Amino acid sequence: MSESHTLRDIPIGIDATGNRTESDSMGKIEVPADHYWGAQTQRSLIHFSIGRDVMPIEVCRAYGIVKKAAALVNLADGRLPKWKADAIIRAADEVHAGKLDSEFPLFVWQTGSGTQTNMNVNEVIANRAIQLLGGEIGSKTPVHPNDDVNMGQSSNDSFPTAMHVVTLLEIENTLLPRVEELIAAIRKKADGWMDVVKIGRTHLQDAVPLTVGQEWSGWAQQLEDALDALKASRGGLAQLAAGGTAVGTGLNAPQGFGKAIAEQIAKLTGKPFVTAPNKFAALGGLDAMVRASAGLRGLAVALMKIANDMRWLGSGPRCGLGELHLPENEPGSSIMPGKVNPTQCEAMVMIATQVMGNDTAVAFAGAQGNLELNVMRPVIVANVLHAVRILADGCRNFRTFSVEGTELDRKRIARNVEESVMLVTALTPAIGYDKAAAIAHRAMEKGETLREAALASGVDEATFNRYVNPKDMVGHGLAGA
Amino acid sequence: MSESHTLRDIPIGIDATGNRTESDSMGKIEVPADHYWGAQTQRSLIHFSIGRDVMPIEVCRAYGIVKKAAALVNLADGRLPKWKADAIIRAADEVHAGKLDSEFPLFVWQTGSGTQTNMNVNEVIANRAIQLLGGEIGSKTPVHPNDDVNMGQSSNDSFPTAMHVVTLLEIENTLLPRVEELIAAIRKKADGWMDVVKIGRTHLQDAVPLTVGQEWSGWAQQLEDALDALKASRGGLAQLAAGGTAVGTGLNAPQGFGKAIAEQIAKLTGKPFVTAPNKFAALGGLDAMVRASAGLRGLAVALMKIANDMRWLGSGPRCGLGELHLPENEPGSSIMPGKVNPTQCEAMVMIATQVMGNDTAVAFAGAQGNLELNVMRPVIVANVLHAVRILADGCRNFRTFSVEGTELDRKRIARNVEESVMLVTALTPAIGYDKAAAIAHRAMEKGETLREAALASGVDEATFNRYVNPKDMVGHGLAGA
Amino acid sequence: MSESHTLRDIPIGIDATGNRTESDSMGKIEVPADHYWGAQTQRSLIHFSIGRDVMPIEVCRAYGIVKKAAALVNLADGRLPKWKADAIIRAADEVHAGKLDSEFPLFVWQTGSGTQTNMNVNEVIANRAIQLLGGEIGSKTPVHPNDDVNMGQSSNDSFPTAMHVVTLLEIENTLLPRVEELIAAIRKKADGWMDVVKIGRTHLQDAVPLTVGQEWSGWAQQLEDALDALKASRGGLAQLAAGGTAVGTGLNAPQGFGKAIAEQIAKLTGKPFVTAPNKFAALGGLDAMVRASAGLRGLAVALMKIANDMRWLGSGPRCGLGELHLPENEPGSSIMPGKVNPTQCEAMVMIATQVMGNDTAVAFAGAQGNLELNVMRPVIVANVLHAVRILADGCRNFRTFSVEGTELDRKRIARNVEESVMLVTALTPAIGYDKAAAIAHRAMEKGETLREAALASGVDEATFNRYVNPKDMVGHGLAGA
Amino acid sequence: MSESHTLRDIPIGIDATGNRTESDSMGKIEVPADHYWGAQTQRSLIHFSIGRDVMPIEVCRAYGIVKKAAALVNLADGRLPKWKADAIIRAADEVHAGKLDSEFPLFVWQTGSGTQTNMNVNEVIANRAIQLLGGEIGSKTPVHPNDDVNMGQSSNDSFPTAMHVVTLLEIENTLLPRVEELIAAIRKKADGWMDVVKIGRTHLQDAVPLTVGQEWSGWAQQLEDALDALKASRGGLAQLAAGGTAVGTGLNAPQGFGKAIAEQIAKLTGKPFVTAPNKFAALGGLDAMVRASAGLRGLAVALMKIANDMRWLGSGPRCGLGELHLPENEPGSSIMPGKVNPTQCEAMVMIATQVMGNDTAVAFAGAQGNLELNVMRPVIVANVLHAVRILADGCRNFRTFSVEGTELDRKRIARNVEESVMLVTALTPAIGYDKAAAIAHRAMEKGETLREAALASGVDEATFNRYVNPKDMVGHGLAGA
Repeated sequence: MSESHTLRDIPIGIDATGNRTESDSMGKIEVPADHYWGAQTQRSLIHFSIGRDVMPIEVCRAYGIVKKAAALVNLADGRLPKWKADAIIRAADEVHAGKLDSEFPLFVWQTGSGTQTNMNVNEVIANRAIQLLGGEIGSKTPVHPNDDVNMGQSSNDSFPTAMHVVTLLEIENTLLPRVEELIAAIRKKADGWMDVVKIGRTHLQDAVPLTVGQEWSGWAQQLEDALDALKASRGGLAQLAAGGTAVGTGLNAPQGFGKAIAEQIAKLTGKPFVTAPNKFAALGGLDAMVRASAGLRGLAVALMKIANDMRWLGSGPRCGLGELHLPENEPGSSIMPGKVNPTQCEAMVMIATQVMGNDTAVAFAGAQGNLELNVMRPVIVANVLHAVRILADGCRNFRTFSVEGTELDRKRIARNVEESVMLVTALTPAIGYDKAAAIAHRAMEKGETLREAALASGVDEATFNRYVNPKDMVGHGLAGA
Repeated sequence: MSESHTLRDIPIGIDATGNRTESDSMGKIEVPADHYWGAQTQRSLIHFSIGRDVMPIEVCRAYGIVKKAAALVNLADGRLPKWKADAIIRAADEVHAGKLDSEFPLFVWQTGSGTQTNMNVNEVIANRAIQLLGGEIGSKTPVHPNDDVNMGQSSNDSFPTAMHVVTLLEIENTLLPRVEELIAAIRKKADGWMDVVKIGRTHLQDAVPLTVGQEWSGWAQQLEDALDALKASRGGLAQLAAGGTAVGTGLNAPQGFGKAIAEQIAKLTGKPFVTAPNKFAALGGLDAMVRASAGLRGLAVALMKIANDMRWLGSGPRCGLGELHLPENEPGSSIMPGKVNPTQCEAMVMIATQVMGNDTAVAFAGAQGNLELNVMRPVIVANVLHAVRILADGCRNFRTFSVEGTELDRKRIARNVEESVMLVTALTPAIGYDKAAAIAHRAMEKGETLREAALASGVDEATFNRYVNPKDMVGHGLAGA
Repeated sequence: MSESHTLRDIPIGIDATGNRTESDSMGKIEVPADHYWGAQTQRSLIHFSIGRDVMPIEVCRAYGIVKKAAALVNLADGRLPKWKADAIIRAADEVHAGKLDSEFPLFVWQTGSGTQTNMNVNEVIANRAIQLLGGEIGSKTPVHPNDDVNMGQSSNDSFPTAMHVVTLLEIENTLLPRVEELIAAIRKKADGWMDVVKIGRTHLQDAVPLTVGQEWSGWAQQLEDALDALKASRGGLAQLAAGGTAVGTGLNAPQGFGKAIAEQIAKLTGKPFVTAPNKFAALGGLDAMVRASAGLRGLAVALMKIANDMRWLGSGPRCGLGELHLPENEPGSSIMPGKVNPTQCEAMVMIATQVMGNDTAVAFAGAQGNLELNVMRPVIVANVLHAVRILADGCRNFRTFSVEGTELDRKRIARNVEESVMLVTALTPAIGYDKAAAIAHRAMEKGETLREAALASGVDEATFNRYVNPKDMVGHGLAGA
Repeated sequence: MSESHTLRDIPIGIDATGNRTESDSMGKIEVPADHYWGAQTQRSLIHFSIGRDVMPIEVCRAYGIVKKAAALVNLADGRLPKWKADAIIRAADEVHAGKLDSEFPLFVWQTGSGTQTNMNVNEVIANRAIQLLGGEIGSKTPVHPNDDVNMGQSSNDSFPTAMHVVTLLEIENTLLPRVEELIAAIRKKADGWMDVVKIGRTHLQDAVPLTVGQEWSGWAQQLEDALDALKASRGGLAQLAAGGTAVGTGLNAPQGFGKAIAEQIAKLTGKPFVTAPNKFAALGGLDAMVRASAGLRGLAVALMKIANDMRWLGSGPRCGLGELHLPENEPGSSIMPGKVNPTQCEAMVMIATQVMGNDTAVAFAGAQGNLELNVMRPVIVANVLHAVRILADGCRNFRTFSVEGTELDRKRIARNVEESVMLVTALTPAIGYDKAAAIAHRAMEKGETLREAALASGVDEATFNRYVNPKDMVGHGLAGA
């Protein structure tokens, strides 16, 4: 089968064993014959075998979009012949679709520019395109990883482009729906329990009452606000570095390349990507990623508060606050029947903590750019995508396995309201602060209910019933007075 | 001079020595007779004498606005008589104007709700109003700190209201102008140097050229993007908790109080404050503060990159990069004449680091809310305002004492461009990659300039001059290709 | 009064108004005539007027020790005449004693080497020594700030020396005693309550019992372990950079200067200071400070856990866990009599959070050294000393105003143990797991006590009494099995 | 093949397809028939399918040691018959040896106590032991996961035991040797270059000279100090929670169990493990893990400084500092021949940043314990082990692929020393400060070498040669004066 300009329907896979020889500007090197990657990928594998952190596969898949868009622009500009562009596009589509996932073995800990992952993508697309055109894998003919697949690009501008594309897509497709579903689930509970009066707690201490629905509505609001801020961070991500090439000047890319490739990426993804207004900032900094990370952290901050509230309100069953029954998903203990541990809440609290740690690394890394390049890109994109993923999955499981199945212990809730001494406040207009205080004191000292103490202190039952009515104390709706 | 309903023109100050007795619900306590504060302030001073961190005075001044707004609403609603409202408003105006700064001695490390600072404000305003009305300071007559000054409010809603007000005002009035001036100064330099070709550096290594103006334009862009994000965080700050009172239900505040006080605060400040849509979220969380802190951190991230770039580009004078001359503000060394240390850059890097530390504390604290209250308010507002202040002052001094006076070493810049071997790239179209590579190799090995190596390798001078022209390599403007 | 070699007894203070002219290598500058500082201090005041963060006065006081030690070594080596050394030592003693505190106005945000604070100290000591010798302040005669006070030193080695000295002293003198007193107070409570059986809680859920004393003993142990680690960090702090001068080589300091000055500092402080084994590491890094900060953070981590436990155990009074009565120091609320807020716990939690933020800044700064110098010194020492101070004061107030006055609600503790269903575990050997489970189930469903459910299920009272005995379930002492 | 008390030699693997039914206290559940895990593992897989973070396999392998040690103690105490103990021990050995790695699929994001991983280990060991004894997998007979494998243990004490064991082992076996090899490689370079005089740089600015060997010795010292601190953190890790069972009291474990199992673990690992002195602290806190994390961070701080120094000193080749030639491992650029990027340094800087992020998460998590349990265990152990691993691998690759192959550009180093104006300092004794300053000034203004400027200013060549001798300026060895 000889090389030609006709695209063939060859299934993915290389029917070879042992090694083949690939080369780059440093010379020849053996690579596994059954893989598409080439010399530079192989060198990176050797030099950067650090830990178990591989470049998130989503980055490589998103790179497929970037490479396809570049080929389309180069085709339109007449720099790539159609047959070659078609082959590159076919291979790039396969990369994007995840069909070549096994070809991206590189580690996060590599060159700080992401060059090695860019070359990994270039090599895999080139060799796959060569295969599709009947050529010899590893020959760089008729499709060259640098000259053709990387045409008009540098790692310095294409890697941050892929970072922005993948981060925006992951936030939109993976995270936002999961958070919105969680908000909806919380809102549904809030609506259902909007009239259930419960004791409020400030400083962890008994305070005046509110309703269960009001409390849950606050959680939903916190998440919505966090989501709004996260969504706002997409504006920076939508700006793409592509077109700046090596240092931001666009050397070796034709005029208009940046704008054209951003338009192509917008078309391919359906997202409002545009070319960055200043390529020097887009290469030297990664500030939009830092801001996206802050958006994720904001979500984590709200989720930690909510998960903590839920597990405290579910504490007990006898010696805690005991207002919520969280679903029992696993045996809590082989010793004690009935022990429910708030494990989904615990997982969520741990996830939130992790996201805050990731964010520290991202901010620190974001501040470490030097001159024309920030070389902390892999650590930044890895931490941001990790946060997106665990937040998304965590929200889904937290909703499915905990929030949706949570029930009230209405008896306990009512008892708490009834027992609380602070309802004495409502008697103040009728009997005065001092007498009210004396009643409260008596109740605490004698361990009486407020009713008991009030009646024993001379308040008649009708007065008590008329004034001490928690339902009248829960106010003016969600917005307060 | 006896108490009446006439406001008198009494200058600030209490002509008394020793102590006077004040009281609260826990009983009597001696307070310094020449101060306006009362019992609860005094108790806090005793119990929270921790470190040297006093509540930022800007919080107390902003509280003056909140208390004035509350009095105006209570007056309009007929809950406060005009003579009393007038006295409260006069005293609140003095608080806001900073005339009573010495009356706010409390520490950051106090009750997590900020109650003690709220009571400090209430007590000072009440006693000053009493004085203005000819009453006896400490008598709580005719102006009571709780019943009158705190009317319709709880610490739980008024303190976060003051936090939002002060943070938004400080960002707008103190920080934004300083950053904008810095951006303008950087842009001016960028414009002036837009045609000065210099060597680019990626991975700290020599790369293809750009212009000095392009490099500086990238810094300006980073700051503008950071500023945009910071400005966006004002939206959350504009939402006020006031009206929620103790737990968010608005108990003891009349219907509509939240909306009315937000309108008053908006009118008094000229800023678009509104009532928070959900008071339970507004009391239980402080997420808008966490997001404002993230905005400040984003600015710090950009400033650290810029200050680091400037000090590296100014390194030398002989054995560093040596492209910039930073202003010499102080003797660098008593040993070596001519040693200029990039001290303004160093201060800026330290400020950025501090802001990142503050932000960690704020995010952590923001995640620690429980049930109806987050009791980490003082630590949050103190860290955020601290960051605002040092960023603002730092930007001003960095601009005045470093950026504006920075000059180029044009000779060094030109020599770097000339010496750089990578300009060989431009010869590739004329003589081919291989010969170009050989020339580069020779230059590095023999320590020749690229010109020397090219001419010695057979390239004629006309060809060299035609192709190796750095000015042609700096590309398509700020947006790249 | 003319200059001589006789030390006179002149009280501190300069009887002058307006300005005087001081000079340095950059020329002349006006300084306030009633202050001892000189030209370089004044320049720093102008250029670094950033925020309100002044260099912690403890740094300047500790610098007094360093300057005295240097003078003693220089005297012993014959490089300083006795009369001059005596004058320097007298002035340095006054600095150390805090008598010249008003002379150190510089900001944290200054040159990263701390040079300006070193010069501030040199200038103040020189001018005070000149005054003591009858000379003209500002004349640099007969005592020169650089040639005499700074003899054998550079800011590059003397500032980190002062940092280590002040940090070790502050940890030892200010912090350790306060933590030890807190541990003692907790231990005392633990001992007193070692036999009070209470319900344990894991995952916030009711678990098997332990004693109150056991619980408190765990807190004491956490603090002791944290203290041990903090103490261990003193080893690095005891190593001093002095003797390295400008870059670590000791240029301009005589052979043996480093060892001699460390011995002098050890003698003056009574602490085991030694000369650092490698001066290049001592100037280029500040790793011992980062490790001391980690030690402080470890303490904060334990304190946060303890303060959180205490406020949750004190939550209520009716609708929380309610096992502890924390002291009531301030009115909790003007609305509800009897509301005690755990304000000391809240302050401690905020302090712990702040320390974690400070520590992030310190670690980040510690990683930012370049070549022969880390220029993040002021931000590091300011954050570390701040943490020391608020931890120390916080521990003192937390102990005095909360821990020592904490009491048990023994009735509630007993009721919790009695009510807890999980005591059914103890019946298992007698009646089997299945029947035990059924009893537990019944108790939960019917809201019965375990006793009620057991007797109703056919367990006879004698059996119940024999097996269900919480006192037998609290185990084998502090070390567990 | 029927169950018996004879241990058979059955290879690992279950010859079955589809599912089998396992059960726990919540009932029956289908598990994959070819896996050893049981019901609780399966439930966790369903409920905690979050992200891609699986419990580090090293935790499970270390758990093999803990389970073996428990079996040995239970055997010695006569609570387990020998045949059963033998089967458990055989299976535990296989777990420890990594032969059953595929049986531990659980996620980091699970119950905060680590119970599910404990049960995963219990189930796998039980089923494997059952298999070895000829029983029916899933039957819990004759080896029960709770009653036999978990005998005398709770997740609450065994999981932190496994955490301490695995962390100490990983630090000792994986990390320490790699850091020591790196130190040795740096020291070797330092020794070889101890006499090569180079220009020093403080504030990034030219300063007085030192030798290359001195500079490298500082790096080695920083790493040694960091290593000492890390080693010291092992003391806390050596204390084991085992014996405390559910809440620290040791309920259900026999007296002496804690001490005995620690001795067994010490014997099995050869490390000085002991029983923790206070089990309540050991369960409620994870402070020793936080301290180990601080030790790792300290290492990261030093490594970041070193890697940054190396890449800056290697910057160039023409327009940077250019003193070091770092090995060229990969093509730096397809455009410019000869571009070497300091990729190993960049990877190390990213690793250091990641470790600082991990440490933030660990410290935060460590502070979040409540009452008898800290339920942030999985996130803590995952972050600590991740840091250990990437630091270890990073140090190995950094050494192998960068440090060992680094060479000097002696010509550049010498030229820098020669060119530096600050050597004028050495002339001061001969010609005075003022004339020296004038010479320096002239050199800078005219772009002359110091020699040129001095000779042109009337200094005779002999004087210049006698005084300006950098070799005499590099001082008193590593410890400075």
